[in-house]
Amino acid sequence: MDYTYGPGRNHLFVPGPVNIPEQVLRAMNRNNEDYRSPAIPALTKVLLEDVKKIFKTTSGTPFIIPTTGTGAWESALTNTLSPGDRIVSFIIGQFSLLWVDQQKRLGFNVDVVESEWGRGADLDALESKLAADSAHTIKAICLVHNETATGVTNNLATVRKLLDHYQHPALFLVDGVSSICALDFRMDEWGVDVALTGSQKALSLPTGMGIVCASPKAIQASETAKSLRVFFDWKDYLKFYKMGTYWPYTPSIQLLYGLKAALELIFEEGLDNVIARHNRLGTATRQVLAVEAWGLKNCTQKDEWFSDTGMEAIQLKLGLGLNKVAGKVFRIGHLGNVNDLQLLGCLAGVEMVLKDVGYPVKLGSGVAAACGYLQNNIPLIPSRI
Amino acid sequence: MDYTYGPGRNHLFVPGPVNIPEQVLRAMNRNNEDYRSPAIPALTKVLLEDVKKIFKTTSGTPFIIPTTGTGAWESALTNTLSPGDRIVSFIIGQFSLLWVDQQKRLGFNVDVVESEWGRGADLDALESKLAADSAHTIKAICLVHNETATGVTNNLATVRKLLDHYQHPALFLVDGVSSICALDFRMDEWGVDVALTGSQKALSLPTGMGIVCASPKAIQASETAKSLRVFFDWKDYLKFYKMGTYWPYTPSIQLLYGLKAALELIFEEGLDNVIARHNRLGTATRQVLAVEAWGLKNCTQKDEWFSDTGMEAIQLKLGLGLNKVAGKVFRIGHLGNVNDLQLLGCLAGVEMVLKDVGYPVKLGSGVAAACGYLQNNIPLIPSRI
Amino acid sequence: MDYTYGPGRNHLFVPGPVNIPEQVLRAMNRNNEDYRSPAIPALTKVLLEDVKKIFKTTSGTPFIIPTTGTGAWESALTNTLSPGDRIVSFIIGQFSLLWVDQQKRLGFNVDVVESEWGRGADLDALESKLAADSAHTIKAICLVHNETATGVTNNLATVRKLLDHYQHPALFLVDGVSSICALDFRMDEWGVDVALTGSQKALSLPTGMGIVCASPKAIQASETAKSLRVFFDWKDYLKFYKMGTYWPYTPSIQLLYGLKAALELIFEEGLDNVIARHNRLGTATRQVLAVEAWGLKNCTQKDEWFSDTGMEAIQLKLGLGLNKVAGKVFRIGHLGNVNDLQLLGCLAGVEMVLKDVGYPVKLGSGVAAACGYLQNNIPLIPSRI
Amino acid sequence: MDYTYGPGRNHLFVPGPVNIPEQVLRAMNRNNEDYRSPAIPALTKVLLEDVKKIFKTTSGTPFIIPTTGTGAWESALTNTLSPGDRIVSFIIGQFSLLWVDQQKRLGFNVDVVESEWGRGADLDALESKLAADSAHTIKAICLVHNETATGVTNNLATVRKLLDHYQHPALFLVDGVSSICALDFRMDEWGVDVALTGSQKALSLPTGMGIVCASPKAIQASETAKSLRVFFDWKDYLKFYKMGTYWPYTPSIQLLYGLKAALELIFEEGLDNVIARHNRLGTATRQVLAVEAWGLKNCTQKDEWFSDTGMEAIQLKLGLGLNKVAGKVFRIGHLGNVNDLQLLGCLAGVEMVLKDVGYPVKLGSGVAAACGYLQNNIPLIPSRI
Repeated sequence: MDYTYGPGRNHLFVPGPVNIPEQVLRAMNRNNEDYRSPAIPALTKVLLEDVKKIFKTTSGTPFIIPTTGTGAWESALTNTLSPGDRIVSFIIGQFSLLWVDQQKRLGFNVDVVESEWGRGADLDALESKLAADSAHTIKAICLVHNETATGVTNNLATVRKLLDHYQHPALFLVDGVSSICALDFRMDEWGVDVALTGSQKALSLPTGMGIVCASPKAIQASETAKSLRVFFDWKDYLKFYKMGTYWPYTPSIQLLYGLKAALELIFEEGLDNVIARHNRLGTATRQVLAVEAWGLKNCTQKDEWFSDTGMEAIQLKLGLGLNKVAGKVFRIGHLGNVNDLQLLGCLAGVEMVLKDVGYPVKLGSGVAAACGYLQNNIPLIPSRI
Repeated sequence: MDYTYGPGRNHLFVPGPVNIPEQVLRAMNRNNEDYRSPAIPALTKVLLEDVKKIFKTTSGTPFIIPTTGTGAWESALTNTLSPGDRIVSFIIGQFSLLWVDQQKRLGFNVDVVESEWGRGADLDALESKLAADSAHTIKAICLVHNETATGVTNNLATVRKLLDHYQHPALFLVDGVSSICALDFRMDEWGVDVALTGSQKALSLPTGMGIVCASPKAIQASETAKSLRVFFDWKDYLKFYKMGTYWPYTPSIQLLYGLKAALELIFEEGLDNVIARHNRLGTATRQVLAVEAWGLKNCTQKDEWFSDTGMEAIQLKLGLGLNKVAGKVFRIGHLGNVNDLQLLGCLAGVEMVLKDVGYPVKLGSGVAAACGYLQNNIPLIPSRI
Repeated sequence: MDYTYGPGRNHLFVPGPVNIPEQVLRAMNRNNEDYRSPAIPALTKVLLEDVKKIFKTTSGTPFIIPTTGTGAWESALTNTLSPGDRIVSFIIGQFSLLWVDQQKRLGFNVDVVESEWGRGADLDALESKLAADSAHTIKAICLVHNETATGVTNNLATVRKLLDHYQHPALFLVDGVSSICALDFRMDEWGVDVALTGSQKALSLPTGMGIVCASPKAIQASETAKSLRVFFDWKDYLKFYKMGTYWPYTPSIQLLYGLKAALELIFEEGLDNVIARHNRLGTATRQVLAVEAWGLKNCTQKDEWFSDTGMEAIQLKLGLGLNKVAGKVFRIGHLGNVNDLQLLGCLAGVEMVLKDVGYPVKLGSGVAAACGYLQNNIPLIPSRI
Repeated sequence: MDYTYGPGRNHLFVPGPVNIPEQVLRAMNRNNEDYRSPAIPALTKVLLEDVKKIFKTTSGTPFIIPTTGTGAWESALTNTLSPGDRIVSFIIGQFSLLWVDQQKRLGFNVDVVESEWGRGADLDALESKLAADSAHTIKAICLVHNETATGVTNNLATVRKLLDHYQHPALFLVDGVSSICALDFRMDEWGVDVALTGSQKALSLPTGMGIVCASPKAIQASETAKSLRVFFDWKDYLKFYKMGTYWPYTPSIQLLYGLKAALELIFEEGLDNVIARHNRLGTATRQVLAVEAWGLKNCTQKDEWFSDTGMEAIQLKLGLGLNKVAGKVFRIGHLGNVNDLQLLGCLAGVEMVLKDVGYPVKLGSGVAAACGYLQNNIPLIPSRI
């Protein structure tokens, strides 16, 4: 069953890649251009400035790398750390687990703090470690802002508070792959040293760009970090930034114009409005779990960790979860350029599928709960569509 | 309020123009070509054959005219009739009313049979007229197959039966604009002499092609019809058909390739499956009216006239209906390449809007009713999406 | 030989349809929208104002009709004239011949002035007719501004001078299909009463829009003109213009956005620069004929009629000309969004084809001549590309 | 001067990125899809098989990596070699120089053989090294098949002969970035162990995919190679290949469908015909240098090294060459999906620019020379366009 024709326009409700707006598709529908012509550096200059806004940084240095989120992880780690460096890293789900795996394979001394899947990162454990580390052997804290496998959002501000409280110089590296442009993220305010995202997430582009942003402290660290890197080496970018040509190797012209269009949409809606919309859709989705009819539980164990970009309901028969929660949860993603009616269509579909597989859901009950929330929590009727 | 930015992908639920599938958008994303090159006649030849399938005709002659539905009407009338000809025409809503208006302006002697909006064409009246017309003064019967203003589908087979019963030679001209490729339509079996549709309806293309199909009897009539026509004259097409170059004037290359892609989608799904899907979505939508929560009535007064492409609910406050039903009805279109989840998202949106304007709808009740039907009436789960 | 795969990007050098710029393709790559939503009337309002600029009129009323150039002709004639009206019309090539054919079929009394193909319209004959027509039996003068079959441009200013000189009230109807946005055209200054073009010509769009512009005098004439018209009736447009919804029937959303993009390109380059570019490319092409190597003659018999949008060289063996010049000429079109290098590639191709068919052309001679002109007549090097 | 509006459709004649065919643009014009759905693995399976054809291998294992050519280099080296390994590598221009730079930075012991730019790799030096290396300290030979900076093509078959002659087990790593799908390349026959290309080169796609193909011997080497790699690790791919899901991290859906379309075009034209076309265009371009009028020399010093994908003429004033040839050469690329007329337009443009900058070129002389060759060396007239 490789392919079954289905009529109509489908939307993606996986946590990524996400739906691409028509405006972005249009912007990318173009021939190649010579990236050494004057037009591409001029475009890049604007993009690098604009990208800083989605990280909420003025002092950071962004790198738009032709790679995926996995490559962006590698870029963050190898440019700032040296082999054998001790890093504290948290496993709370599949994506944080994969990052820890990469950290180990890259030769770091990973001090792993694991929590039950469905819970946030154990920041009490972090505090203990920081308190005990007067020798400053911890070189970095690595944290996934939003773990899509379990729908858990970690509290970055608390990490910064702890680092400041203990006057600890560790670098603070954050995977913002499914949070940046979707959840409240404040690179400068929270003292994040490296933050990163991928184009196919809340930016609503195709896969192909890992966007990494480095604080001045991270840039400084990159000058002495001994991890081997060539393709991912920031130095090459910085050299070309100085020359004003920007690209050490060929970028995707299409993705650059697509990024321009995607940022224009985000700035037109307003970054904070985009974040508020994700919260509204997330809250609406969680209403569904509150009703008796579905009778399912959110995989996320406490309200403080609720993710506004993807929720999970514990469930017995559908085998779509990842790793420890495989076969126990399914996930509804509403990341990126998505609106109320798309989400409601998805929820109606979930209800039918639950019924298809024998789960005693009351059809319409979940949609009703979500509608009830949305209809009362809409800033303006026009924006509902 | 010319423009309000809204996130996400919107679908059209007006009765036309309708959503264009991605495959069709892709096919049309192309430069112009010389329509006198060998490629375009070769493509046209295939299209003309394939188009006959959607009319269910083998003996008909199709014309793909660079015009709208209004132009297709004019083409049907002026090629087969002469000024002053008596034609029996039915008004049951806004579109049939507009066609009658055109018929009068074109100089025909229009014998109008009007019904209450929400009812089908009065075929008893037709029978009386045919019975009384032993002199064969009636030259044509003009009927809109599906009146989108009121969601009423007329019974074409009955018209044919009446004509045959009275051995009446009148031409049978059918507006299939919102029915062909959506409802059961059988040109040859029902002895339709001219049938027509528009590209932006169930074919799910942009506006720009009026597709008219003429029976051998209609072609014969066109040889003596005295109505003035030049742009719409079939003779010019027939001349170029014979020459094998097909086009008396420049066609839209993009729409020709789009038509190819649209037909491929329809044939892949299967024309009868496409029609069954419209019925399933129509039935699901009508379930909504059956529930007490919405408490609305279908504008269509009898089951036999239910349209599977657009329903109407009588309603007091929303002013979106046309003409006699303006301000009393609103319409939900589900024409063309649409699936269950798109419709359910739309129904959820309608519920929220009804509540927004103060109508005491129970949120989720309509969606539940539609889901209940759809979940039980799906040929295969894969095809639901 | 329906289709032969060929690598690379081909350009069209026929006189229409022409190459579509990528910007326009992108703008049209979109789903349908509801043309009764607030966005489309707002867009239309702007387009109707902007379209007037390409006609160089402030007092004219434009109509954007979903039809072809042939339909635009019919719109111009039927809205301003009555059956039997005497019109003076000029045949100088295939397109003017086709228009005259339409005029006759529409029931006008056509007073035809034919010239040898390759010559401009016989304005001396017009003067005689005007001088003799003190009774004002001539209701309209119909003239094709640029006859692409022979590459001849007629002098519209002279026609206006003659009409003024004889104080003749005849309407002045101009086919600007291959001239507007390519040649100098001044509706108001030259007192043109109806001017028209098609989207697939110098506007560089797909086929599908006939754009007709009517002077106040033409609008006045339309109020009493007795020619039968419904689809093409301006009254329907004017009614919807007043209502602010603009469209009597469904327009192509894609073409409207495409028109917006096409006009933006024209205004960015500057309409007068666009016209100068057509002149530069036309002059360059005509240099080819001046060299001995090709040894061909321009079909256009005098310099004053040279067309800047398509030239013709008398030629014995290639059978691509139309009607009286079929088999004797071939045409090189450089209409619309075309640049120097595209034209030079085309000329090089023509040289190879001439040689392929046995014509003793010296390869490179024509390109050299065109290059020589272009290299010396370029306002700025950047704009050469 | 960031941006100057220029009319018309421009083509790229840089050695990459290259022009994208319309068919490929269309195929990529699509929304994201879930890469864990059944459709993407099914598509990937076909692509991996088809990609082997362009490498002319049946035993190789391809990896389609979301990266650039630089990343593909890193993938080839780090998966097969260990830090400190001795590799023989050749510098003959800018790209081979950059690869050597990467090899050094990745910690290999690079035994560099440099030739004068404009000459091919010094294979005599290779022979000496192989002859002297009975201890098999050389672990790999790294060679750029086609050096675009100087337009030099190296002879891979000779390298294989030398390795076989000395029964040397060194791996043979080939950068085929600007040769695969353009020049004759035979992975299996020439015993290439790792070959690689980039999507934006002869495949005529956007940037974003590094395609690496490994021989069984290379795969075996990867099992013990000690170079650190995570993002570029073949093991992750091989693990997912076994699982049948293929992707260790998110691929670009758009590029996968684009690759499918690009390969279809290549197979439709025929891979050997594509290669022959590159040769024909290369030979035509080199004719230009033979004529006295241009009076320029090819940077490539011997015929045996002529590259069919980009030639260089020594030139004094235009500063577009790279590194050692900067300011001395300019390059004309005709890589990928390009045809005769595009190239001829480019040559005409070069002549005008040469004249613009004061070089005493005779306009038309180069185009004439190229036309003369092309007109006589065309398999079929239809394929010329």
